[in-house]
Amino acid sequence: MNRRLRCYDCGETFEVDERKRCVCGEPLWFDVDTAGFEWPDEDWTAGMWRYVDVLPVSEPIGPTPGTTPLVRAEELEEYAGCRLSLKPEGQNPTGSFKDRGTAVGVSYAAATGYDWIGTVSHGNMALSTSAYAASAGLEAAVFVPADTPPERLELIARHDPRIFRVEGDYGQLYADTLALEHGSDLDVTFVNSDTPLRVAGQKTVGYEILEEFEPDVPDAIVLPVSSGGHASGIWKAVRELEDAGLLEETPRLYFVQAGPCDPIATAYREGRDEVTPIDPGETIAVSIANSDPPSGTRTLRAARETGGAVVSVPDEATREAMDRLATTAGLSVEPSSAVALAGVRQLSESSKLAPDDDVVTVLTGSGYKERYDVDVDSRARTIDLADLEDELAAAVDG
Amino acid sequence: MNRRLRCYDCGETFEVDERKRCVCGEPLWFDVDTAGFEWPDEDWTAGMWRYVDVLPVSEPIGPTPGTTPLVRAEELEEYAGCRLSLKPEGQNPTGSFKDRGTAVGVSYAAATGYDWIGTVSHGNMALSTSAYAASAGLEAAVFVPADTPPERLELIARHDPRIFRVEGDYGQLYADTLALEHGSDLDVTFVNSDTPLRVAGQKTVGYEILEEFEPDVPDAIVLPVSSGGHASGIWKAVRELEDAGLLEETPRLYFVQAGPCDPIATAYREGRDEVTPIDPGETIAVSIANSDPPSGTRTLRAARETGGAVVSVPDEATREAMDRLATTAGLSVEPSSAVALAGVRQLSESSKLAPDDDVVTVLTGSGYKERYDVDVDSRARTIDLADLEDELAAAVDG
Ligand SMILES: [Zn+2]
Ligand SMILES: [Zn+2]
Repeated sequence: MNRRLRCYDCGETFEVDERKRCVCGEPLWFDVDTAGFEWPDEDWTAGMWRYVDVLPVSEPIGPTPGTTPLVRAEELEEYAGCRLSLKPEGQNPTGSFKDRGTAVGVSYAAATGYDWIGTVSHGNMALSTSAYAASAGLEAAVFVPADTPPERLELIARHDPRIFRVEGDYGQLYADTLALEHGSDLDVTFVNSDTPLRVAGQKTVGYEILEEFEPDVPDAIVLPVSSGGHASGIWKAVRELEDAGLLEETPRLYFVQAGPCDPIATAYREGRDEVTPIDPGETIAVSIANSDPPSGTRTLRAARETGGAVVSVPDEATREAMDRLATTAGLSVEPSSAVALAGVRQLSESSKLAPDDDVVTVLTGSGYKERYDVDVDSRARTIDLADLEDELAAAVDG
Repeated sequence: MNRRLRCYDCGETFEVDERKRCVCGEPLWFDVDTAGFEWPDEDWTAGMWRYVDVLPVSEPIGPTPGTTPLVRAEELEEYAGCRLSLKPEGQNPTGSFKDRGTAVGVSYAAATGYDWIGTVSHGNMALSTSAYAASAGLEAAVFVPADTPPERLELIARHDPRIFRVEGDYGQLYADTLALEHGSDLDVTFVNSDTPLRVAGQKTVGYEILEEFEPDVPDAIVLPVSSGGHASGIWKAVRELEDAGLLEETPRLYFVQAGPCDPIATAYREGRDEVTPIDPGETIAVSIANSDPPSGTRTLRAARETGGAVVSVPDEATREAMDRLATTAGLSVEPSSAVALAGVRQLSESSKLAPDDDVVTVLTGSGYKERYDVDVDSRARTIDLADLEDELAAAVDG
């Protein structure tokens, strides 16, 4: 495929290794010609590499991401207020959606001859990048906020990266790492949250959702949004598949933020064309707490052009959605994923989603990688083996 | 399909709800006629339910397990001593291979009208059963050893089961629960580690591996063994696919135990026909520390009839294999999974596996659900954002 980058906004194009953001300031993505593209015959064993023809790398490296299932969640529909399907991205190799973009980024870096790959992350992307770098024989440099909990660092450290706990502004860190790559001779390439290679890999979740529905199209796709990289990937998939003539309608794209840190939802609410940084509050949805999202403005555009919206939900609603997913659908997700289901409920309550709308919610990450405050004692008791029958009878008949 | 159970050993058959073990004492499994079976056309979105024609349920409930990728691990081949492929079962919904059998067991229980489902587990199966029961609207009763760590119970408790920490012998607990189901009027069905429904679901990992290789057949499949339920499932798949005429050769089945708790390997080494309980030592591979495996004898038979073997490895080798998987293949697994790779290395060193053998190793569970003792400090440093370039340069050029 064509390896040029294009700005979604002003249309300017660049060489792939030239820069990651346009001269106009907006993020770039790959220019892909999908005329003539058809749903692939390759079977499930290829994972997301089934779509290799529209990806900027041809030699996949590392654990195989993708082909996560689409789960119809009838038991949650009253709660959600619509016909709900879930896409549990926690079933990727390192437990989050990040593996799709990482797989493309690391495969590209290895093919291009870089020795180091870097990223800026709250956790999931650092873990994913470290794991894939290890599988490719590359060194990883991961930059995380200085207050990242040690338990999360322990998971990352297993894959032997260099971890930098950075004291300073997270948005500035993102910008400084990209400036460093293109303004120094250091042998490192950064695959940050919304850089072109990451968005290229991330779009495969959109391809999968839309292939799963074809020849129909879901009415809406709802996902949590942080930097806007994931949102950009889904929008890119929709645009590319429209270009290929494979979508009869455009699914509305809805993006959900955590109330205490919702710069994109704020700009949407205020009818602005650009997202500006906010002064954030604390939220349980730490993975998506980005107060200065580098693809925020692109995300706004994606919501508006597809007829969707950007909303935010209070942590209380997120907590409730998380509990519903675990106790009703059997899915344990991180708070940042539950945000999307809380958003679906809110969108239904405000009639943006209708009861007969087919809605896909992307659950971005597994909840099993972290410990939460769950009341074990109310559900557990210690018994003697000799009392097995009596204890079980008391539970079953009680 | 036929819903009768058959004893692999004496050939006796029973009704499905009549009993779970034969009058001769050995475990039962479903009698499946696969004459005329062909690899299914259904695509990846069905997960393991692609094989619904050979499963004892037709209405899948809950998160979709299966279609986990097969990953060629060239970077580990020198270490492994053979052509190695990995099957990371941690990419199932609750992070382990257990979801396959649970999905069948819970779907069957729901279709049959049970209100409660039970299991006896060290952790993975309790988590899996609780999650699937939640998705089906069933109550779950999970019985775990009294010393199960609270962090593991926290994951399980999210799905709101009744947890019983049992003081007493684990092998006896397994037997007592089955006796209770068939000898009482309690409205509960147990899907323990090697019961027929669990083995039926578990066999799908064998189907997937063999479909992934077809028209070839791997030379060997290597997996960790505890109760022998997983081993029985793989053997069942091999037998059914041989009956269907789809295998040109029989893959050798190798089973690996942790040295401190290796009753099946001990019986194999001593040339015995039956597995008897042992007095176990402590091992890091807690998930497979079963000193009285209910399908131990069936596992012995599977190894011998396919030309494989049962071996055990010291915890030190397991630790090394775990570290290799994380730092070389980018896969974090639990110690009980790493046991299998340590076994591959040992089998290669003893020339049971040859350098050009195609070997599939099943990695049974994700490592991200537990915390391990990893040295974070040697890989992490706290820096100021202003020093970004100097710090990165020191790492890259250092
Ligand atoms: Zn531009
Ligand atoms: Zn028998």
